Amino acid sequence: MEQKFKKSRGESLTVMTELVLPNDTNLLGNLLGGRLLHWIDIAGALTATRHCENLVATVTMDRIEFKHPIKLGNIVTLTSYVTWTGTTSLEVAVEVDVEDAQAQTRIFITKVYIVFVALDGNGKKKKIIPYKPATENEAAEFNAGFERRQNRLG
Amino acid sequence: MEQKFKKSRGESLTVMTELVLPNDTNLLGNLLGGRLLHWIDIAGALTATRHCENLVATVTMDRIEFKHPIKLGNIVTLTSYVTWTGTTSLEVAVEVDVEDAQAQTRIFITKVYIVFVALDGNGKKKKIIPYKPATENEAAEFNAGFERRQNRLG
Amino acid sequence: MEQKFKKSRGESLTVMTELVLPNDTNLLGNLLGGRLLHWIDIAGALTATRHCENLVATVTMDRIEFKHPIKLGNIVTLTSYVTWTGTTSLEVAVEVDVEDAQAQTRIFITKVYIVFVALDGNGKKKKIIPYKPATENEAAEFNAGFERRQNRLG
Amino acid sequence: MEQKFKKSRGESLTVMTELVLPNDTNLLGNLLGGRLLHWIDIAGALTATRHCENLVATVTMDRIEFKHPIKLGNIVTLTSYVTWTGTTSLEVAVEVDVEDAQAQTRIFITKVYIVFVALDGNGKKKKIIPYKPATENEAAEFNAGFERRQNRLG
Amino acid sequence: MEQKFKKSRGESLTVMTELVLPNDTNLLGNLLGGRLLHWIDIAGALTATRHCENLVATVTMDRIEFKHPIKLGNIVTLTSYVTWTGTTSLEVAVEVDVEDAQAQTRIFITKVYIVFVALDGNGKKKKIIPYKPATENEAAEFNAGFERRQNRLG
Amino acid sequence: MEQKFKKSRGESLTVMTELVLPNDTNLLGNLLGGRLLHWIDIAGALTATRHCENLVATVTMDRIEFKHPIKLGNIVTLTSYVTWTGTTSLEVAVEVDVEDAQAQTRIFITKVYIVFVALDGNGKKKKIIPYKPATENEAAEFNAGFERRQNRLG
Repeated sequence: MEQKFKKSRGESLTVMTELVLPNDTNLLGNLLGGRLLHWIDIAGALTATRHCENLVATVTMDRIEFKHPIKLGNIVTLTSYVTWTGTTSLEVAVEVDVEDAQAQTRIFITKVYIVFVALDGNGKKKKIIPYKPATENEAAEFNAGFERRQNRLG
Repeated sequence: MEQKFKKSRGESLTVMTELVLPNDTNLLGNLLGGRLLHWIDIAGALTATRHCENLVATVTMDRIEFKHPIKLGNIVTLTSYVTWTGTTSLEVAVEVDVEDAQAQTRIFITKVYIVFVALDGNGKKKKIIPYKPATENEAAEFNAGFERRQNRLG
Repeated sequence: MEQKFKKSRGESLTVMTELVLPNDTNLLGNLLGGRLLHWIDIAGALTATRHCENLVATVTMDRIEFKHPIKLGNIVTLTSYVTWTGTTSLEVAVEVDVEDAQAQTRIFITKVYIVFVALDGNGKKKKIIPYKPATENEAAEFNAGFERRQNRLG
Repeated sequence: MEQKFKKSRGESLTVMTELVLPNDTNLLGNLLGGRLLHWIDIAGALTATRHCENLVATVTMDRIEFKHPIKLGNIVTLTSYVTWTGTTSLEVAVEVDVEDAQAQTRIFITKVYIVFVALDGNGKKKKIIPYKPATENEAAEFNAGFERRQNRLG
Repeated sequence: MEQKFKKSRGESLTVMTELVLPNDTNLLGNLLGGRLLHWIDIAGALTATRHCENLVATVTMDRIEFKHPIKLGNIVTLTSYVTWTGTTSLEVAVEVDVEDAQAQTRIFITKVYIVFVALDGNGKKKKIIPYKPATENEAAEFNAGFERRQNRLG
Repeated sequence: MEQKFKKSRGESLTVMTELVLPNDTNLLGNLLGGRLLHWIDIAGALTATRHCENLVATVTMDRIEFKHPIKLGNIVTLTSYVTWTGTTSLEVAVEVDVEDAQAQTRIFITKVYIVFVALDGNGKKKKIIPYKPATENEAAEFNAGFERRQNRLG
C-alpha cells in the first residue's frame, strides 16, 4: 500500500453536542430517526473536511442500528474520527451517546461508518491526505476499515 | 412460519416528492447527505405507519450508497413499500430517483432497506399485521427480506 | 386557439406525502394553515416545473377552503396536475387528502387552482408547452380552466 | 343585524416585518410563494387572535395575486386588520408591501382576505366579539366583507 | 462633531411581531433564549439596513436581561429604532414586549442596544448616514449612546 | 459564603461544533449574528443543564462582540464551562472559535458570560449545586464571576 502517512486522528476528531428540542421529535416525544441521521452525516462530514482540508461528499453510510429511543430534552453527543484512508476516499466512524442530565445517565446509542470523497470547487475528486494510525488499536481499526471497503466493493 | 397474511403492498405504498431548495444544499449546491437520509427515514416511516396502523420507530437502516450528486432545483422522488414482516418488526424498501425537469432526465440514486417496530401510545411494541406478497416477485423479495433479517441478527 | 397540444396530464402529475410533525402545528395540535399553503404551493410548482421544463413562479392562488382540521401525526397527501395552459401561463389543480393511519380514515380536505408562469434563468417569461387533454373529462376541465382565467382577468 | 359593537380595528391591527433570507428563496433568488403564504396566514391569525382573545383557525383564504417577484434581501411588511365580524367567524385583510432598502423603493405586492373562526381549548367554536367600524371607510369595508361572505357561502 | 444630520428615527423604525410556536420552545413550553436573541438581531438589522441603505453586520450586542418567561402561544412584539450614529457604526435599540391575547395582558420583557456597521457588496465598511434626533428625548438618548460607545471602546 | 463545593468544571464542560450552511447566512455569505447567538445560548444551556441536573432558563447574557465575520462553510466551535455558582443562579462562559478547514486557519471570535437559573418541572427555581474551582486560575475566574454578578445587580 506504500502510503506516506501524514495526519493523525486527533487533528480531525470532532465532538458535536445537540439538545433534543420539540422540533426534533415525533408523536411519542422521541427523536426522529432522520434527524439523528442528519446529525451523524454532519458530524462525519466535519471530520472528513478537517482531515481532507477540502469540501467532501457522502458516498456510503454503513448499516446503522438505533438501540434505544432518545427522548425530548436529552443531550446527544456525536464523536467522529477517521478510521481509514484510501487514494480518493476515506472512512469516518461516528459514535453516538445520549445523556439524561436530570437522571444523570449516559448510554451508548450507535456507531456507524461513513465513506466520503474530497472534492475541489468544481466537484472533482481530490487525492486524500493519508491518515497515520498512531497506536496498535488505530492500526487494527485501519485494517478493519480496509476490509470493510473490500466488502463494500463486493 | 404459518402467518395469516392480511395486507397487500399497495395498501401502504408511499410516494414522496421533494424539491431541492437552497436550504437543503451544501457549498457545492449539492443536496446534503443528511437531508436525503431524513427524507428516506420519513418515507419509510410513512409506509410502516400505514401498514401497521400504529406509531413506528426506526430500528435499523441498512447500508446506503449515494451514487450521484443531487443538485439544487432537482426533484427527488422517494417510493417506499413493505418487503417483509415478522412478529414485531417489518422491513421497508425506499427507492430514490432524481429528476432534472429542465434537462428532462431522471436517474436512479439509491435503494435502502429500513427496519421498523410498531409502538402503542406508551412506546410498547405491538404485533405487526402480516404482509401478503401478491406476486412471485414479491414473494422472492419477502424471502430475501427474511435472509437480510437473519444477517442483521448476525 | 389553434394549439399544437404536446404533453399529457400524466407527464407532470405529482404526488407529495407529508407527515404532520410537532414543528408543523399550533397550540391545539392542528396543522398550521400557512404550512399547508406552503406544501400546496410546492406541489403545484412541481407539476408546473415538470410540465414547462423550466423554472416557474406563482402568479395567483384561487380561493382555498380548509374544511377540516388536520392533526399532529396525520398523513397529508397532495396530488397536483395541469388543468389548462395558455401562451405564457398555466393552471394547476392541487387536491389535498388527510389520512389517520391509526383510525384508518381518509378524508378530502380541499382543492385549489394555482396559476404559474415559466421563467428562463434571467426571470423572463417563456412560452408554455401546450397540454393536451386526453379524455372528455379533461377537456371539460380545460374549458372550465379557461373560464376561470377569464374571471381572474375580469 | 343588531350587533353590539365592542372592539375597534386598532386594537388588533398587526404589523409583521420579515427579511428575505437565503432559506426563503428559490433558484432565481426570489421569495417562495409558499413562504409568503405562510407569513400572510400568521399575520392574519395574529390579528384574529388579538381581536377574538382566543385561539383561531383558518377557514378560507380568498384569491391572492403575486404581482411582483420579491428578491433575496428585500424587507417584507405585512399589515393585517379586521374588516368584518359575524357570529362565529371574522374576516381579516392582510396587505403586503416590499421594500428594497438599498434602492430605497417600496411597492405594493398584494392584499388578501382570510376568514378565521375562534376556538376554545377543546377546539370548539366560540362567539366572536363584534368589531365596530369607526369611520365611513371602515363601515364600507364592513359591508363589502359581508358581501364577500355571502359570495363564499354562494 | 460637526455632523450633517440627515435621517429621522421614524424613517427606519421597525416593528416585528412573532407568534411563539412549538418549534420555538423548550421542555417547559417557554421561548428559547436563543430564539429571542435571533429575533432581536433581525429586528435590529432591519432598522440598521433601513437607516444605512446598505447591508449591515452585527458588531456588538450589549448585556441583555430576560425578565420574564415567554410562553407557547404568546405574541412577541419587537420595536427597533436608531439611537446613535458615528462615522462607520450606528447603535440601535430593540425593545421586546410580550402579549397573552387570551388573558389580555402585555408586559415589557427587555431592551437591548446593538451596534452595527454598514457594508458594501464586497464586505467593506461604508460611511453611515447621520441620524438627526428630533426631540429633546432623542437628543438625550443620542448622548447616552455616545457614552455607551466610549464605554465599549473601554 | 460557606459553600459546600461539589462539582468540577470538567463535569459540565461542553463542546458544540457547527458547520455554517447556506441556511445560516446573510446576503454576503456571512453567518447571521442571531444564528450565532442561538448556538451560544444552546451551548451555555447545555453546560448549565449538565451542572444543575435540571432544566434551566437564560437570565442574562453579557455584552458580546463579533470580532470577525464567519463565512459560509466555516466550522464553528463553541466551548462552554461553568465559571461561578450562587444560591439560585450560575454563570457560564461560552468561547467561540472559527475554523477554515481549507485554509487551515482557526481564529478566536468571542467569549461571553451567560447567567442561568435552574427550574423544576413547574418552572420554580431550584438550588444550584455548588461548583468547586480546581485550580488557581479557576478560583480567580470564580471571583471575577462574583464581581460581574455584583455589577449586574447594579
